[in-house]
Amino acid sequence: MIAVDWGSSSLRTFRLDDRGKIMEQRRSDLGVLTCQGQFERVLQQQIVGWNDPLIVLAGMISSRQGWVEVPYVECPVTMGVIAAGMMNVEAPGLPNRRVWIVPGLICRTVAANATDVLRGEETQLCALMAHADSMRRIVCLPGTHSKWAIVEGGRIESFFTVMTGEVFDLLRKRSLLASLMTESLEPLDREAFRQGMAQAQKTGGVLHHLFSVRTAGLTNTLKPAQLASYLSGLLIAHELLDLPWAEEVRGQSVHLIGNPALLESYRLALLELGTAVEIHPETLAAHGAHALAQHCGLLHPCAA
Amino acid sequence: MIAVDWGSSSLRTFRLDDRGKIMEQRRSDLGVLTCQGQFERVLQQQIVGWNDPLIVLAGMISSRQGWVEVPYVECPVTMGVIAAGMMNVEAPGLPNRRVWIVPGLICRTVAANATDVLRGEETQLCALMAHADSMRRIVCLPGTHSKWAIVEGGRIESFFTVMTGEVFDLLRKRSLLASLMTESLEPLDREAFRQGMAQAQKTGGVLHHLFSVRTAGLTNTLKPAQLASYLSGLLIAHELLDLPWAEEVRGQSVHLIGNPALLESYRLALLELGTAVEIHPETLAAHGAHALAQHCGLLHPCAA
Repeated sequence: MIAVDWGSSSLRTFRLDDRGKIMEQRRSDLGVLTCQGQFERVLQQQIVGWNDPLIVLAGMISSRQGWVEVPYVECPVTMGVIAAGMMNVEAPGLPNRRVWIVPGLICRTVAANATDVLRGEETQLCALMAHADSMRRIVCLPGTHSKWAIVEGGRIESFFTVMTGEVFDLLRKRSLLASLMTESLEPLDREAFRQGMAQAQKTGGVLHHLFSVRTAGLTNTLKPAQLASYLSGLLIAHELLDLPWAEEVRGQSVHLIGNPALLESYRLALLELGTAVEIHPETLAAHGAHALAQHCGLLHPCAA
Repeated sequence: MIAVDWGSSSLRTFRLDDRGKIMEQRRSDLGVLTCQGQFERVLQQQIVGWNDPLIVLAGMISSRQGWVEVPYVECPVTMGVIAAGMMNVEAPGLPNRRVWIVPGLICRTVAANATDVLRGEETQLCALMAHADSMRRIVCLPGTHSKWAIVEGGRIESFFTVMTGEVFDLLRKRSLLASLMTESLEPLDREAFRQGMAQAQKTGGVLHHLFSVRTAGLTNTLKPAQLASYLSGLLIAHELLDLPWAEEVRGQSVHLIGNPALLESYRLALLELGTAVEIHPETLAAHGAHALAQHCGLLHPCAA
């Protein structure tokens, strides 16, 4: 089968064998936002030479801006319910293929807070559930908008979005703080990162603490090359300390899913707070699509 | 005398009579950041026809990017100490004038938090102190970076910067939330503003709450024209609730200084929290410059 992780700004395709092993993978920048109205053609080109009959797509491709809007499935949710929410898409340009799109999730459970939504991460969470026992796990998927989820007893219990990544990018590149700092976060300055984390634990709130990036620059407490690391530590610490599961996170291990560069700051921050981490690669998206296909019998050669 | 409030992005000049009454005022967009290296010439053009011998400048003009960098004066501070920190500037292009620049303030006192700084607001605070008794007052100067200050016994005790205004602008214009909302905040939608304030009081922290702007748009809980008001209420409530003086603010009145449009959201938010407000116009900058000049005898015709 072919698994497709089609997000706002990237398109990743995986070719899997019957057992779900990744045989080949391709990546492009042809995200959902740049492919408006041309999804079928773009996909066709992206999987040239791969003749597998089944294609399972997940990510923003299921949204209003995507190929078809697939209704959200509500948390708490099992893999079976997600699989049942998958939608079959007509794709005349892809003859002899069956094309399915995985639904995103909607959540209203965390501390009676506002509604939360995700698209794409549900597939990665399914992969995690497929190969794990039913114990309670806290999962973090860092990104432009990080997603935190509780997985337990074969269900995704609830999840939670934090806009840390986007706020970091805006402040680093476009704010009045930007001129003070060198743009690249690499290499991460661990000492500055830790100082940012320490600042986040003081009084005043994040909207105040942000200004300490400026004063640290003005007073030469930190060098321009250190300020992005400081800002990263400051924001990620606020993310972690304000989690509804903050106390639980301290005592337990957290499962991190994503590409290694993106995960590194979260790994450091969690270790700094005394939390163990377990790291999973982004290819979980492919394994999740396979697990969902298997769950609804789509892998069977006679499946319609 | 002539009072000049020269900030990063605007230049305001005031002509005052001996008693400090404003006779004329001018405004331009020639802020410090756009006038690099041409301060004398720009000022000359801005005060054409005003022949008063004394010119007192305040704002970012005293910073590293300004005309001369005037060293910060440290809080707690009296008007006398600020006046003593004023710096005389050589201005051969402005013959028969005496040009003085007011220093900014540095503060290390709020809850042992990081260093904080301001430039320009000290002059507005001086005006407030000049005409008030010595009672403790909480003052808020909303802006790109809001400044909160405690004034008591003829001193500026401490202050506190919050980046709410800039974060609001970045999110409204440049973030993934931007496409969901109409750009203008005017007219402020009070109901949406209140909903944003209510959201800020739930668990999860501001970096999470920001995402509720998106979900409110996606689920049609709020209309695109309401989302900027919702975001404004959300951010300002976080500013108010995270203040080190949050409890005190609830029980007391807050002095708001600034232009009426900018103050309106803060006025609404404070009233919503049961706090009385007292509003002062931006022209306080001119009165503060006059009070400082008077304090160090610069208004005397024989002053050097």
